[in-house]
Amino acid sequence: MADSVLIINAGSSSLKFSLYRENTDKEFVSSANGLLEGIGTKPHLIIKNDNKEIIFEKNWTDPELFKPSARDKLFDETIEWLFHHLGDDTIIGIGHRFVHGGAKYSAPALANDSVYEDLKALTPFVPLHQPGSLSPLRVMLNKNPEIPQVACFDTAFHATMPDYAKRFALPRKYFDDGVRRYGFHGLSYQYIVHYLQETNSPLATGKVIVAHLGNGASVTAIKNGKCVDTSMSFTPLDGLVMGTRCGKMDAAIILYMLQEEKLSPDEIQDLIWKKSGLLGVSELSSDMRDIIHEIKTNGAKSEYAQQALDLFTYRLVGEIGRLIASLKGVDGIIFTAGIGEHSPSLRYEVCKTLNWLGVSIDDEANQSGAVTISKPESKILIQTIPTNEEYIMLKEVLKFTNK
Amino acid sequence: MADSVLIINAGSSSLKFSLYRENTDKEFVSSANGLLEGIGTKPHLIIKNDNKEIIFEKNWTDPELFKPSARDKLFDETIEWLFHHLGDDTIIGIGHRFVHGGAKYSAPALANDSVYEDLKALTPFVPLHQPGSLSPLRVMLNKNPEIPQVACFDTAFHATMPDYAKRFALPRKYFDDGVRRYGFHGLSYQYIVHYLQETNSPLATGKVIVAHLGNGASVTAIKNGKCVDTSMSFTPLDGLVMGTRCGKMDAAIILYMLQEEKLSPDEIQDLIWKKSGLLGVSELSSDMRDIIHEIKTNGAKSEYAQQALDLFTYRLVGEIGRLIASLKGVDGIIFTAGIGEHSPSLRYEVCKTLNWLGVSIDDEANQSGAVTISKPESKILIQTIPTNEEYIMLKEVLKFTNK
Repeated sequence: MADSVLIINAGSSSLKFSLYRENTDKEFVSSANGLLEGIGTKPHLIIKNDNKEIIFEKNWTDPELFKPSARDKLFDETIEWLFHHLGDDTIIGIGHRFVHGGAKYSAPALANDSVYEDLKALTPFVPLHQPGSLSPLRVMLNKNPEIPQVACFDTAFHATMPDYAKRFALPRKYFDDGVRRYGFHGLSYQYIVHYLQETNSPLATGKVIVAHLGNGASVTAIKNGKCVDTSMSFTPLDGLVMGTRCGKMDAAIILYMLQEEKLSPDEIQDLIWKKSGLLGVSELSSDMRDIIHEIKTNGAKSEYAQQALDLFTYRLVGEIGRLIASLKGVDGIIFTAGIGEHSPSLRYEVCKTLNWLGVSIDDEANQSGAVTISKPESKILIQTIPTNEEYIMLKEVLKFTNK
Repeated sequence: MADSVLIINAGSSSLKFSLYRENTDKEFVSSANGLLEGIGTKPHLIIKNDNKEIIFEKNWTDPELFKPSARDKLFDETIEWLFHHLGDDTIIGIGHRFVHGGAKYSAPALANDSVYEDLKALTPFVPLHQPGSLSPLRVMLNKNPEIPQVACFDTAFHATMPDYAKRFALPRKYFDDGVRRYGFHGLSYQYIVHYLQETNSPLATGKVIVAHLGNGASVTAIKNGKCVDTSMSFTPLDGLVMGTRCGKMDAAIILYMLQEEKLSPDEIQDLIWKKSGLLGVSELSSDMRDIIHEIKTNGAKSEYAQQALDLFTYRLVGEIGRLIASLKGVDGIIFTAGIGEHSPSLRYEVCKTLNWLGVSIDDEANQSGAVTISKPESKILIQTIPTNEEYIMLKEVLKFTNK
């Protein structure tokens, strides 16, 4: 008999979860991970224990369950298996990751029907993301209302941005209606700040740029542990070049697509969220690993892949420049998330371009996977720090339990 | 009997022109200026000589001429008066300002029917600007095809930008179809480069940021006299906060306006081009002079005006930061155009925010209207240089004549 915490991270067509079980040292350690994929097409569930051994797998065959509307039912079956598997163990809290908490939620919230309705009302802001996160919250509120359920928000970390960073130059009504810069990847940024504080890093109280570079990518300016500005804005579309998202773009291009190309809003949404970015420019892949592999393998012949990489790097450096101006200087730059943690060649290119600022990279440390990758004489400390968003969620959930 | 050059600068609802007459020193000097306003509503023409005395004025009364389609006819009447006024003088060349020259025109072009058709084909890119510029070119090509007519482009200066500065992270088709960063205000930037070269400024071969801040506003990064990147992109909507334009914005906001607010593309176009920017945020005025006057007069009570000014300044500093990163350092920053030339308090705020880079402003020089406004010890040279786009057009037209 042990206490466990369940962490749920639901996307538009998939759902990940992790179970953390309290050990005899009173620490919560990962005991199982699950992935429910293919929601809306061909759903597939796989659950592994902490030794990465498969402990449960299921392919659904009923065509009724191939519909997007079957999301709740699939999750319900998954959770039934999990509760059965737990045996005498008890789930003492559940963390639900939400991309968007709007202007109201600047901290994690104990979820109830009223919170659920608030979050549902934000769906127009992030139509591709919010429904996926709402579904497991609804199922669990119905099924086990006695278990504390905590909604954790990717927007919350950015609530400290000043008005001039949050505001678009639109009529004031838009800001008042919630059309403003929110910023995302906040749980990741919060983890990095936590890491800096725990390790007594001088950066914990300094001016830091954190580049969270994954399939979605953003950069955030942090001063004394608080967000000052960030590259994503109203939605996670804005800012950097991403796997399939265009990032920053002249808004008038959307009018051109509507008025001249006669595309529908849905077609445009699909184009700029799912067919652009690295994929659109390289015509090869949305995955930076494929882009870099193609360039290494085919050299000058991989023109499209090279253009995609150059564009990604240039836009990242430009956004770092903008945020350094917002911070009025910089003490450290930190790389994190998939690309940030695992692409030393990209980190090298970015740092080389920032030489003029006094950045000096130690490429041996950079290639070897060290935390600190700048030379001792570098005016700016450069680090690679693996992020851990689940750790932050786990901590937040435990605050709402008796642990 | 003297030679004259006519310079035409046509907007969506107005048309400005200047006549330059060759004097006995063989220099072309301004001899008359005209403004035809209210095209499409209540047209009004006023022409002044070089002593700013009104030499001709006309209010049209025929309601047929209140329609936008009367543009050609109004211009034709204007030009008839001008030719009559010239007497024995001869117009040896005409310069037409075009906001957009597309990917084809990276230098001024001698206009003929084929050039006219090329430029007309760009109308979908800048539907608010191109028709106004095309009309006087069409009238003059019909009326006086023997006079050399030179189309000058606000995009041409930016043709030297590298692929990664021009490209949006959209499917490659868009770049190939001409949906790319062009940049605008090129005639102004060309004049600044010309001024630096003529005055043997060290900046002529250095890394320079030029801020052209007028009712439309942009910033450009120039290295060795050539454009490296600029804040406006596919259209003059993008980048900085402007009088009535929103500048940079999450493109997903347009989808929100379409899908959630049910606005039409035309309504959105009107909103983001004509009701946003300083006007939208201040709810007072699109004119920076009014905003600053309001803050000086009403202090803490002028919250909306202060937010508009803060947003304008913050976004300008951020864009300067981005462009400095593109240049990998900076030797000089130059302010020009209406706001840039006449708002010492704004220049002061921007420079103060850039202190961390080694910028040190001499506020006495700044207030007095000097060219150099940085202190001798400033690591970056800061200057205010009045722009002169007509001078560049005049020079370009003369290249196509025998002068």
